[in-house]
Amino acid sequence: MEHVFFYGDLFNFTYAVFKAMGCADADAHTATTALIAADIRGIDSHGVARLSGYVRLWEAKRINTTPQIKVVHETPSTAVVDGDRGLGLVVAPKAMQLAIDKAKNAGTGWVSVKNSNHFGIAGYHAMMALQHDMVGMAMTNASALVAPTFSIERMLGTNPIAVAIPAGTQPAFVADFATTTAANGKLEILQRKHADTPVGWVQDKDGHASVDANALKTGGALLPLGSDREHGSHKGYALGSIVDIFSAVLSGASYGPWAPPFPAYVPMPQNMPGEGLGHFFGAMRIDAFRPADEFKQHMDNWIQRFRKAKPAPGYDKVLIPGDPEREMEAVRMKHGIPVIASVVEDLRTTGEKFGVVLQR
Amino acid sequence: MEHVFFYGDLFNFTYAVFKAMGCADADAHTATTALIAADIRGIDSHGVARLSGYVRLWEAKRINTTPQIKVVHETPSTAVVDGDRGLGLVVAPKAMQLAIDKAKNAGTGWVSVKNSNHFGIAGYHAMMALQHDMVGMAMTNASALVAPTFSIERMLGTNPIAVAIPAGTQPAFVADFATTTAANGKLEILQRKHADTPVGWVQDKDGHASVDANALKTGGALLPLGSDREHGSHKGYALGSIVDIFSAVLSGASYGPWAPPFPAYVPMPQNMPGEGLGHFFGAMRIDAFRPADEFKQHMDNWIQRFRKAKPAPGYDKVLIPGDPEREMEAVRMKHGIPVIASVVEDLRTTGEKFGVVLQR
Repeated sequence: MEHVFFYGDLFNFTYAVFKAMGCADADAHTATTALIAADIRGIDSHGVARLSGYVRLWEAKRINTTPQIKVVHETPSTAVVDGDRGLGLVVAPKAMQLAIDKAKNAGTGWVSVKNSNHFGIAGYHAMMALQHDMVGMAMTNASALVAPTFSIERMLGTNPIAVAIPAGTQPAFVADFATTTAANGKLEILQRKHADTPVGWVQDKDGHASVDANALKTGGALLPLGSDREHGSHKGYALGSIVDIFSAVLSGASYGPWAPPFPAYVPMPQNMPGEGLGHFFGAMRIDAFRPADEFKQHMDNWIQRFRKAKPAPGYDKVLIPGDPEREMEAVRMKHGIPVIASVVEDLRTTGEKFGVVLQR
Repeated sequence: MEHVFFYGDLFNFTYAVFKAMGCADADAHTATTALIAADIRGIDSHGVARLSGYVRLWEAKRINTTPQIKVVHETPSTAVVDGDRGLGLVVAPKAMQLAIDKAKNAGTGWVSVKNSNHFGIAGYHAMMALQHDMVGMAMTNASALVAPTFSIERMLGTNPIAVAIPAGTQPAFVADFATTTAANGKLEILQRKHADTPVGWVQDKDGHASVDANALKTGGALLPLGSDREHGSHKGYALGSIVDIFSAVLSGASYGPWAPPFPAYVPMPQNMPGEGLGHFFGAMRIDAFRPADEFKQHMDNWIQRFRKAKPAPGYDKVLIPGDPEREMEAVRMKHGIPVIASVVEDLRTTGEKFGVVLQR
């Protein structure tokens, strides 16, 4: 049972909730745009479905809705930003904009962020670079749900990486993926359906292969991209580690198993070695390497050649990273965004706290 | 049947071969050091086993041993280098050094390279940054052996990524991995043993799962990290694509299925859209973000915490990226480097071309 909302419906509601939480107009606008980018692009787990989670973090005083976001260190091509416990949805776009501004002068800009919170989908922030003819990158650490290769302890978050690369007449290349075999949102979908996972997504608390979509609730863990050592899980573990180190060790945020949890009911880790959650952003001006028009012509050629790669039997075509999300965005902007009943109910309950009504 | 050589034995022989090919003293030294870094670190597929391949590329006039390596474009934090068809083993260390020099002034340095050739192991180049208290990165595109998700056409190389991160009292974090489930070198080992691969490493020419270590010789393909769509192969495909674009589209090298092949008997692709093979290097000065001592203390803490992560039953301990190669290096510097008989034979034959004798 789903309800269909238009972009504006979800935007107005979410904006009103962020305002009621104390965000300034501009910050509420920034946060809402970033959050709903997930719903519109089809990444339902990271959009309005998480709004009540942000509210609970604010209620638990883990989010500051009037942060003084500051640059605490910088060079021509780098900066460290202190997010002052702000919404990641506000801190991240500001830090990404700083990376873009640095790239205008130095060719590239790289910003590591501490003292932040969850920032929605990484791809949204990376894509900010596209309109400036820049390559954009975004990554973040997150609550520990992933066991390193050979381990049963949850040490890393799903630590996503997004890379957005402009093209000319073709749509941009936009990769945005968790460094695990499957994102946690995919487990949530299976949980609601009472369905099993494929082998290779999770392990149980003893480190054995499991197909239980609820394995994380009984001490299990998500597996790094690659699933097991024989299939390259040490590579997924390395990727997740790099995201953790760039986002949190470079900035002074809390890393590894000490990353602050998203669910407000989970106690904060003891002896946290840094401040809050960390992110890492990059922007590279195309014409710091070669003329942008020339690059974009070659990206068009790259994209067109890969689209024409011979499909395997049973498949229509080869996809370019970003294709599914862009196609989803076109459909949902026109026909609306289906929201499952339990999320609608959750939004209504959240709205009631603030006297905000979810309208269609 | 293996023969054991000491580092100096392989060094002297390889140096003499590069000299005989026409390399200047300094270039022969650079190339030899980079090549043998693979043997010493246990990545046997990328070391002296490839020397005769480089020689054949030179014989086919695809490698220029007296290149004029030039910076063709730059900004404070970026550069594009034209390798003038030089040995990647020479071009890459020069480009990485340029990234390091840029980072000294601008905080970070990013160098994309065209008109190069295969550069050995990515990790060697990334590790050059460590002694400067910098994070190092290296990647390269390569001959197309990998089919994108949903395809049966070989469009990407194994396109490795290396990231080296300094620590304090702990050894550095050094990740270096192909963006495929298994590197091609692992297939070669199984071929010699007449053994099957695990499911998920390769597909046959029709796109069906295969365990044939020779699948690539009959039109099959290596699979991107993740193996299949259900296990995240679209992520491995995206990673390999990012490496290809940063290395070759940013620089003006030849990309995707047009990347020049390593085996000299394979004809060059028709209508190549760029010049030679491409690489991408990055260096980030730690203290462009936070004081290096502070960072390194936290890296030590990160590494020690991950080493103590609870192991799964049947495993001793959790590894940090770079541990196996560093341990191998210690053993091989002391006890020598075992080289299989067929490679020894190949080296002897190569030496005979130049009147160079492989000595122990």
